[in-house]
Amino acid sequence: LSRPPSLDDILNGVPAAVGRAISLAERDVWGNRELLAAIHQHTGRAHVIGVTGIPGGGKSTLVQRLALEFRRRDLTVGIVAIDPSSPYSGGSILGDRIRMGESASDPGVFIRSMATHGASGGLARAAMDAVSVLDAAGKDIVIIETVGVGQDEVDVAAGSHTTVVVSVPGTGDDIQAIKAGILEIADIHVVNKSDLPGSRHLMAQLRDMLRMGSSRNSGWEVRLVACSAKDDEGIGALCDLLREHREWLEASGALQAREKDMAAGRLNALVHALVSRRIAAPDVDIVERMVTDVAERRTDPRTAAETVVGAL
Amino acid sequence: LSRPPSLDDILNGVPAAVGRAISLAERDVWGNRELLAAIHQHTGRAHVIGVTGIPGGGKSTLVQRLALEFRRRDLTVGIVAIDPSSPYSGGSILGDRIRMGESASDPGVFIRSMATHGASGGLARAAMDAVSVLDAAGKDIVIIETVGVGQDEVDVAAGSHTTVVVSVPGTGDDIQAIKAGILEIADIHVVNKSDLPGSRHLMAQLRDMLRMGSSRNSGWEVRLVACSAKDDEGIGALCDLLREHREWLEASGALQAREKDMAAGRLNALVHALVSRRIAAPDVDIVERMVTDVAERRTDPRTAAETVVGAL
Repeated sequence: LSRPPSLDDILNGVPAAVGRAISLAERDVWGNRELLAAIHQHTGRAHVIGVTGIPGGGKSTLVQRLALEFRRRDLTVGIVAIDPSSPYSGGSILGDRIRMGESASDPGVFIRSMATHGASGGLARAAMDAVSVLDAAGKDIVIIETVGVGQDEVDVAAGSHTTVVVSVPGTGDDIQAIKAGILEIADIHVVNKSDLPGSRHLMAQLRDMLRMGSSRNSGWEVRLVACSAKDDEGIGALCDLLREHREWLEASGALQAREKDMAAGRLNALVHALVSRRIAAPDVDIVERMVTDVAERRTDPRTAAETVVGAL
Repeated sequence: LSRPPSLDDILNGVPAAVGRAISLAERDVWGNRELLAAIHQHTGRAHVIGVTGIPGGGKSTLVQRLALEFRRRDLTVGIVAIDPSSPYSGGSILGDRIRMGESASDPGVFIRSMATHGASGGLARAAMDAVSVLDAAGKDIVIIETVGVGQDEVDVAAGSHTTVVVSVPGTGDDIQAIKAGILEIADIHVVNKSDLPGSRHLMAQLRDMLRMGSSRNSGWEVRLVACSAKDDEGIGALCDLLREHREWLEASGALQAREKDMAAGRLNALVHALVSRRIAAPDVDIVERMVTDVAERRTDPRTAAETVVGAL
């Protein structure tokens, strides 16, 4: 591994330093402690937006259009994409050099793709570290894009100031967000591909659902917007709603509650990462013994788990 | 919650008792300890098969066809479906009454749908408990169907004796299993919907990939089979391959290694469930204090995590 970047370079948003800081945090949860602690001190300014929905909803096109719209409004943008089906490579809207690093055409956008597999210590943990780095690097907006299928991905999207759930028309008469269990985390619903047949029906269904449900914070009425990301339609309206939600969070005092939720999610992920690390430590042979005992039915899994936790 | 079922009823495969045991384990990780420990003593007989792949691959149709084929061979089948897009409800191949409980038309098949969200203590943990119950209940074959998107779901599918990865033609020129990071966990690859154009191309691509890659166990050559589940084609061949893999596991001694991997995955899930429970305990106010300190930047997340683990 290369030398860690300087804090100054990160705070100044130097793309190479930002990318390197994210890589270091991703690969080594417990390395570079002082740097990551210092980065944390410089966070809390960005508007963190989670975008989720089932695969095939056109989320990455939407996120890219959104980034361009924020740029038009003179805001800088960081994107953390943890959707394995995201086409953040050649031919995407924001340019070529975006798999890792800044947009080719605009240094005000920094995009980072994250593998859903292999991040040491968990995807949620790595994603939240990446958000911190981008926040500290001065991005006004940080967007986390996930696919709302695994619990981890849902947690990540929900661990934002503002959560956007993307649906698309024409995939049966159920609302996919309900199936995926992500309806209730939305502050804003987007019906993307609104040019497709069934779009009005889906909007009406969502509107009915919202009438019955409740938001995470009383006082905010969950909003609904139709977009056609590929045609750049509805993106301005979505951008307005995102700003409105952020302003509501600040004015109502709900921002502090969200910040605490985000800190709790982060702490939880790191506690589990630490436990995993201790379990995997080479001197903890109690784990190996318990695994054998469970496999050979000499003990049951729950008793074995208590033995391991007791020995940590 | 209703009274726990008797161990005898579970071991005799009484559907109501089996269903109730799974529900109890799902809802209360640490309840009914003696019953779950006793169930564990009676496991180890079933052939546990994981089936995974990205959404839209026709996995649930494939799994149902597979169940029917096993039944034709006089084997009983348990299915744990944790794909949120699985259509295990009215109109499915195995009949109507299968969202929870035995197949309407055949008591030799027991299907259990699991929500990806809300299982207390984690999806992987709950799924593995369900597998144990079905194993103890005498099912010869237990199939876990997951969508290979979240890490949890991949872990569940990989935590089987035999892992089947399902791909479908015509979704771009990449192999989806590579994108989802699930190529390497396959013991058997299925190209489903083999009547679609591009099926031969996908088979050839997979064959090329396999030539480069390696299996989880040296000695087993990863196999490739084309199916059209909706037309019931290729299912017999898949069934033969599954039996062949199981026989190879037994003959080569690799079965013990897999059993240990499965026990390790299970222990790991339960250790994390136990840690989550201790963190959430009402008397652990250190967690609340650390959350506030992280949110208000008085400490950094890693130092806070160490403080919490130290206090557990």
